[in-house]
Amino acid sequence: MKTMSCMSLRYEPGRLLVLDQQHLPHAETWIECADPDHMARLILELKVRGAPLIGVAAALSLADFRKRCGSEEAFRSAARTLREARPTAVNLAHAVDRILAKPAEAERIAEEIFDEDVALCEAIAVHGVPRIQDGDGILTHCNTGGLATAGIGTALGIIRRAFEAGKRIHVYADETRPLLQGGRLTAWELGRLGIPYTLICDNMAATLMRAGKIQSVFVGADRIALNGDFANKIGTYGVAVLARHHGIPFYTAAPVTTVDFKCPTGAEIPIEERHADEVRGVRGSFGSVQWAPKECAVHNPAFDMTPVELLTGLVLDTGYYPQAELRRGCLRDLGRNR
Amino acid sequence: MKTMSCMSLRYEPGRLLVLDQQHLPHAETWIECADPDHMARLILELKVRGAPLIGVAAALSLADFRKRCGSEEAFRSAARTLREARPTAVNLAHAVDRILAKPAEAERIAEEIFDEDVALCEAIAVHGVPRIQDGDGILTHCNTGGLATAGIGTALGIIRRAFEAGKRIHVYADETRPLLQGGRLTAWELGRLGIPYTLICDNMAATLMRAGKIQSVFVGADRIALNGDFANKIGTYGVAVLARHHGIPFYTAAPVTTVDFKCPTGAEIPIEERHADEVRGVRGSFGSVQWAPKECAVHNPAFDMTPVELLTGLVLDTGYYPQAELRRGCLRDLGRNR
Repeated sequence: MKTMSCMSLRYEPGRLLVLDQQHLPHAETWIECADPDHMARLILELKVRGAPLIGVAAALSLADFRKRCGSEEAFRSAARTLREARPTAVNLAHAVDRILAKPAEAERIAEEIFDEDVALCEAIAVHGVPRIQDGDGILTHCNTGGLATAGIGTALGIIRRAFEAGKRIHVYADETRPLLQGGRLTAWELGRLGIPYTLICDNMAATLMRAGKIQSVFVGADRIALNGDFANKIGTYGVAVLARHHGIPFYTAAPVTTVDFKCPTGAEIPIEERHADEVRGVRGSFGSVQWAPKECAVHNPAFDMTPVELLTGLVLDTGYYPQAELRRGCLRDLGRNR
Repeated sequence: MKTMSCMSLRYEPGRLLVLDQQHLPHAETWIECADPDHMARLILELKVRGAPLIGVAAALSLADFRKRCGSEEAFRSAARTLREARPTAVNLAHAVDRILAKPAEAERIAEEIFDEDVALCEAIAVHGVPRIQDGDGILTHCNTGGLATAGIGTALGIIRRAFEAGKRIHVYADETRPLLQGGRLTAWELGRLGIPYTLICDNMAATLMRAGKIQSVFVGADRIALNGDFANKIGTYGVAVLARHHGIPFYTAAPVTTVDFKCPTGAEIPIEERHADEVRGVRGSFGSVQWAPKECAVHNPAFDMTPVELLTGLVLDTGYYPQAELRRGCLRDLGRNR
């Protein structure tokens, strides 16, 4: 494969490096990924994260592995392991399946997936930037930027291109408990890009909305059902309800690869439950503390599902789809033409 | 003064001990409080916290100080320092003002404030328990239990008495970022009382509501305006909006001392802004970590304001007041009769 590089992945022939996102913002540590088993672990440990990026990273890892895996069985088993590393993110399954469909062309397809992701992000920004007005306060949740994709990102990519186009915006970043992707990654990325922002705890968004500080909400998606329902980082659904109550437009941005054309509604999207310790405290390269009672019972879904009724519109690389069009079945049509 | 004791305060003649709530749930450490200046620091550092408890603790400290403070000026200065330790909680100002009105009777009044608080909690529970049905899932935010008052608590006191009356309930406790009163204190208290509970991150409440797991929300209040608007721990307003969206009853419980009879609406309630580091990471007896970029800009209001429109009803020690009565001005009438 050719040399490929983005904010959190580097490939040079025979060598795949990933930026350890658990070490941000305090250190930029690169890990050499040995094989797909290793990549699956890195994904599970959230060192490699972001629905689009996971797909790209899995594809590069699988294609690179093919040359030296010895048997078709070892290759297929590696693909299975990767495919199951994060059940909610559909891009991962898409990427692995594309390679499995034509294993002999694994390398070409992996390159294609990488290049496509870069282009998808730019196309998303083209359709999303017009939704942002000069002077807007914008709320975002989790991390959807260059760290989450091979390109400029999805929701954060739109915000970035709007800022670079001269729109004077202010971003409010939810810290995004329990894993703090907002507090660690989005804050780091916004700071790096020079975009003015304020970090808040998740439970502060409502009062900012009431105070008139937020004119729009932009989030990403981990899986989009055909009717426009979508799964995203836990907390997204609550933000959507708050936005509706305050009459604030709420947008989701994602590449079309995030649409699950086999999934009719959000009810069919599996939601991954993660370890209780993530809620009992925090753990990362920054240290590890636990404040809750040792064995206390915990609920820890990694994602939630936002119904299309709360969505102002969906920004895909293929266009902007207001709620009414989503409810008329425009994603079904999109699937038919693919 | 006589000997007085509750979950987080102990007074014996000449000696005032407070439970360091920053050390919970991992250690039960008692601090001997030297004088009102010391108490003001303990309140500021949230070692002594909970709107009702702060009032009781300040009263005991001030009354105890009177015997040995030397001058009227030193006494009044100590009262001022205490009064300003937390501007949002009105109980604190109430308690200090009651003693300042009759300094010669400081000790009797402090005892009265303590005993009243115990009785207020029981009376609140009497009016609140009928709002809870057998089998209910109940969401609560922050800590409003025995740790926050001299008695059984306000919102959590209701929950406790409902459980002890044999109602099979399940409590969902918001962890309550940034200071984690839910994750540390409410979890500890519920565990101690044997009440079944699940700890969640603040941003998980919405999806539990949608899933039908929550039948009512009970929170406390730090200050209630005459029209029924109220200030409470940051995040309360968002929970109120979510409850409204899902058609779930939302109750606030407090002693009548929390009503600010000079405050017409929530717009007049001052909201304390706290240090940015509280949002950049966490710090406590459990350890201290920072995950956000070092100097990142932060918004950190300690409280938010919930308008009466979102309140199903207010539970005071004097009775239960549904929203319609609050909007008809029943708190104004209550003030006239006091």
